[in-house]
Amino acid sequence: MPELRKDPILDRWVIISTDRQKRPTDFFLPEVSHREGGFCPFCEGNEDKTPFEIYARGKEDRKVNEPGWSLRVVPNRFPALTIEGDLKKEGEGLYDKITGVGAHEVIIETPDHTETLASMSVEKFIEVLEAYRARITDLKRDKRFKYVLVFKNHGMAAGASLEHSHSQLIALPIIPKRVGEELAGSKRHFNYKERCIYCDIIHQEISQKSRIVLENAHFIVLSPFAPKSPFETWILPKKHLASYENIPSECMESLARIFSETLKRLDKALGSHPYNFILHTSPFGLENIEYYHWHFEIMPKLTKTAGFEWGSGFYINPTSPEEAAGFLREAKI
Amino acid sequence: MPELRKDPILDRWVIISTDRQKRPTDFFLPEVSHREGGFCPFCEGNEDKTPFEIYARGKEDRKVNEPGWSLRVVPNRFPALTIEGDLKKEGEGLYDKITGVGAHEVIIETPDHTETLASMSVEKFIEVLEAYRARITDLKRDKRFKYVLVFKNHGMAAGASLEHSHSQLIALPIIPKRVGEELAGSKRHFNYKERCIYCDIIHQEISQKSRIVLENAHFIVLSPFAPKSPFETWILPKKHLASYENIPSECMESLARIFSETLKRLDKALGSHPYNFILHTSPFGLENIEYYHWHFEIMPKLTKTAGFEWGSGFYINPTSPEEAAGFLREAKI
Repeated sequence: MPELRKDPILDRWVIISTDRQKRPTDFFLPEVSHREGGFCPFCEGNEDKTPFEIYARGKEDRKVNEPGWSLRVVPNRFPALTIEGDLKKEGEGLYDKITGVGAHEVIIETPDHTETLASMSVEKFIEVLEAYRARITDLKRDKRFKYVLVFKNHGMAAGASLEHSHSQLIALPIIPKRVGEELAGSKRHFNYKERCIYCDIIHQEISQKSRIVLENAHFIVLSPFAPKSPFETWILPKKHLASYENIPSECMESLARIFSETLKRLDKALGSHPYNFILHTSPFGLENIEYYHWHFEIMPKLTKTAGFEWGSGFYINPTSPEEAAGFLREAKI
Repeated sequence: MPELRKDPILDRWVIISTDRQKRPTDFFLPEVSHREGGFCPFCEGNEDKTPFEIYARGKEDRKVNEPGWSLRVVPNRFPALTIEGDLKKEGEGLYDKITGVGAHEVIIETPDHTETLASMSVEKFIEVLEAYRARITDLKRDKRFKYVLVFKNHGMAAGASLEHSHSQLIALPIIPKRVGEELAGSKRHFNYKERCIYCDIIHQEISQKSRIVLENAHFIVLSPFAPKSPFETWILPKKHLASYENIPSECMESLARIFSETLKRLDKALGSHPYNFILHTSPFGLENIEYYHWHFEIMPKLTKTAGFEWGSGFYINPTSPEEAAGFLREAKI
C-alpha cells in the first residue's frame, strides 16, 4: 500500500508509491554524455569569451583572465538579474514589484572540458566548495542582497545549457520562498522544543540507520524521510551550524570527500544521470541562529513534474528513501 | 531591466527576465505529434483493457464497458493512491505518515484517438467539464477525502504516458500544500479587506486590460501578473464562486466555449505544444466561503525547472504576461 509522508520541516506531503516501486534500472534515464567537437567558452584558453572574472584559483604567477587557472568565477553572460541599479519597490494596484537587482555568477569548476565533480580529485573539489564560501562572503557586503542561492544543473535534462562542469549562484534582494518555508518550519520546532529540527533529524536517522548513506567525523549523508523525488540525497554537518560560510576550514576536506563519494555512488547506482543540487544556508544577518542548519540537497532528475505536482505542491515518488539509501550504500565505487 | 514580481496570493516571487525575452518562436518546443500504430487501451473497442468504468456518457442504449460511449471515467490502472483501506495516521519519531488512501481516476475525454480538447466540439467539451463536476460531487460522499485535484498532462514532455486525450483526478485525504497556500493567502486578504482577492484581481485586470486574453458574459481568461512559466493562463468565473461543482448549469456552455478558444489560441501561438492544466476549487466542506474563487490554471511546458527553481521556490520567466496575453489575443484561430 502506498504511504503519504510529511516533510517534518515543510508543510508538504509526498506519496511513496509502492505499487509503482522502481529500482534504479527501471528509470528511463536521459544519459549525460560528452558531445564531441563544438566551441566551449568555459575551456582553458577561451577566457576572453566570458565576462571578466570575479574570482579564480590556479598558478601563483597566473595573470587575470588568462590560462593557468584551476577554477574561475565569472558573471553569467545571460543573467536572470542585473548587478547594476537601485532596489526600487513599487506597487501596481494590488500587485507588488521590485527592480530585478541581483548577482548571477557562474563557477567554472575545472579548466578540463571532460572532468566532472564526480571525477575530479578531492583537492580540486575543495576548491569548488571554497569558491562557494568566498563568493557568499563577498556578496554579503552588498547591502541590497538578503540571500545567495548556490546551485548546480548537471546535464541538459536538469537545465544545464553548457556541458562543461559548472555551478551557479544568484544573489537575491529577497529571501527565497523555499528557504523562508524551511526557516519558518524549523523555527516552529525550535519554539516548541528548544532544539534544531535538523539536529533532531540527524539524531533519529543515526539511531534508525535505514536512511543513512554515508557518515564521517563531521558530515552525514542521508535519504530524507519524505523525498520529493527518487534518490534525493542530503548532506548535513553533524554539528549544528546555520551558515555554510562559517564552516571551519579543517572540515572542508571532510566535506569534499563525502560529497565526492556521494556523487560517485549516485553515478554508480543510476549511471551517468542529470541532477541538480542546491545549497541551503541561513540568510544574511541570521548566520548564528540556533534553529536553522545548512545543508546540500542533491536531486537526480529521474521523473517528470506534471499536473498533479504543480497543482498540489505534493510529489509522487516511486522509490522509498529506505530503498534508495540501500542502493547507494551497496554501490561499489 | 528584469523585474521581480510577487504573486498576490502566494508568497512567491518570479523574475520576469526581459534580457532573456522570448517570443513564442524562440522556445525549443517538443512538438506533440501523433504516433502511428501501437495499441491504445483508451480507444473505443478496447473497453476491457481498462479497469471497470465509474462514469460514462454516450448512446442511451449503450451497455456498460462496451462501445458507444463519448466519454468514460475509469480507475487509473497504476494508481498513486489506493481506494481500499482505512485512513491510518501514525508517527515514526518526529516523522508523520498516513496510509496512502485515495482515488485516482482517468477521464477518457473522447473515443477518438486523434481528437484533442482543442479540436473537439463545444458539445463534447461540455461533457468533459460535466464529468469533472460529477466525479467531484460523487467523491465528496467518501468521508476519508478532503480534496479532489483534477488535472491534465498533455504530451510526453508534460508527463502524459498515453497519447489518447485524457485528464485525471486524485482524491486526497489531506488538502494539497498549493491549495492550502492559496486558501491562506486569500483568507489573509479577505480578513483585511472583506473582499475576495480573486474578485479584486478580476476587477483590476478588467480596468488595466493588458493581461486579458478573452472575456465572455460569465468568464475571464488572463495571463496572471506573476506567472511562473511563459504563457501561463488562468480561466476564472467573473461572479464569485468558491467551488467548481456549484457552477450553474447554464454557465457550462460558456465555460466550454472560452476554454476551447483558449486552447486553440495557445496552439496557434505556440504550435502543438505539451501543457498541464489544473483545476483549483475549494476543499470539501468549504464550498461557500467568501474568500476563495475556483479557477483553471493552464501551464504550457516550455521551460525546464532546474536548480534555482527547486532551491528557491521562485521562477525565472522569459516572457512577460503582458506580451503573452498580446500574442494570444492576436492569434488567428
